[in-house]
Amino acid sequence: MYEEKFMLRAIKVSIKNLEKGGGPFGAVIVKDGKVVAIGMNRVTCNNDPTAHAEVMVIRKAAKKLKTFNLSGCEIYTSCEPCPMCLGAIYWARIDRIYYGNTKDDAAKIGFDDSFIYQELELDKGKRKVQMLQFLPEQAKETFVRWVEKEDKVEY
Amino acid sequence: MYEEKFMLRAIKVSIKNLEKGGGPFGAVIVKDGKVVAIGMNRVTCNNDPTAHAEVMVIRKAAKKLKTFNLSGCEIYTSCEPCPMCLGAIYWARIDRIYYGNTKDDAAKIGFDDSFIYQELELDKGKRKVQMLQFLPEQAKETFVRWVEKEDKVEY
Repeated sequence: MYEEKFMLRAIKVSIKNLEKGGGPFGAVIVKDGKVVAIGMNRVTCNNDPTAHAEVMVIRKAAKKLKTFNLSGCEIYTSCEPCPMCLGAIYWARIDRIYYGNTKDDAAKIGFDDSFIYQELELDKGKRKVQMLQFLPEQAKETFVRWVEKEDKVEY
Repeated sequence: MYEEKFMLRAIKVSIKNLEKGGGPFGAVIVKDGKVVAIGMNRVTCNNDPTAHAEVMVIRKAAKKLKTFNLSGCEIYTSCEPCPMCLGAIYWARIDRIYYGNTKDDAAKIGFDDSFIYQELELDKGKRKVQMLQFLPEQAKETFVRWVEKEDKVEY
């Protein structure tokens, strides 16, 4: 069963990564039955809060395949993606997600994705992080220019 | 009013970016009344689906401040963050978000963050992207090792 091979690889990557000082998370992107890229959590090592395994592997796979559209790809991740990573997976147009541990398992060992999921479901005014709309009239200009631009690359 | 200066900067960055072939989004991170970093949407230019303005500016600010924890910082963004970027903002521990355009404005010009917000609120089985739990027993090993590890860097 080829899915097993790739999931075991993602798990192996996660273990190797924690041995090397990273977080206990690993991910693999596969296309047409072949590994395109592997990624691991390097948040504390790289001083990069966005360096989760899934974001890392998406960036690497997109660079390797020379496209921002990873449709036709699958991601194998040692843990259910957090909202940041799930958002990245949607933007990348990845078809399918295989995950090992759940977000509740992650919360139990101190990685509180569940909190962020809850926050995203709240109305803006009720979130822990303050969100203030500001100068919308001025900001609109960018979108007007985008609509008018003829040679834009849409995605 | 110093907030105005930073928001206008984020808007200016977004306009300059679209003129240079990027998406119509810009962001600025500010700490103690000073700009730490600017970021812009480079998804199509860099072939990186994660290269939204907020993710870019968080990566740059964290690198510059040599920390994965941006508490004490504010983010000014020309548009309300998508779930990926909002997740990144939570992970970075940013205190406050100022945004110009809304996610509904973005949806109207073809950037469908709203769709991803809706997807995140659904139960896993009901999302458009297929999510399958796989080999949880094997995946658990990583988390057990993390808990047992004595010299880990938590965040």
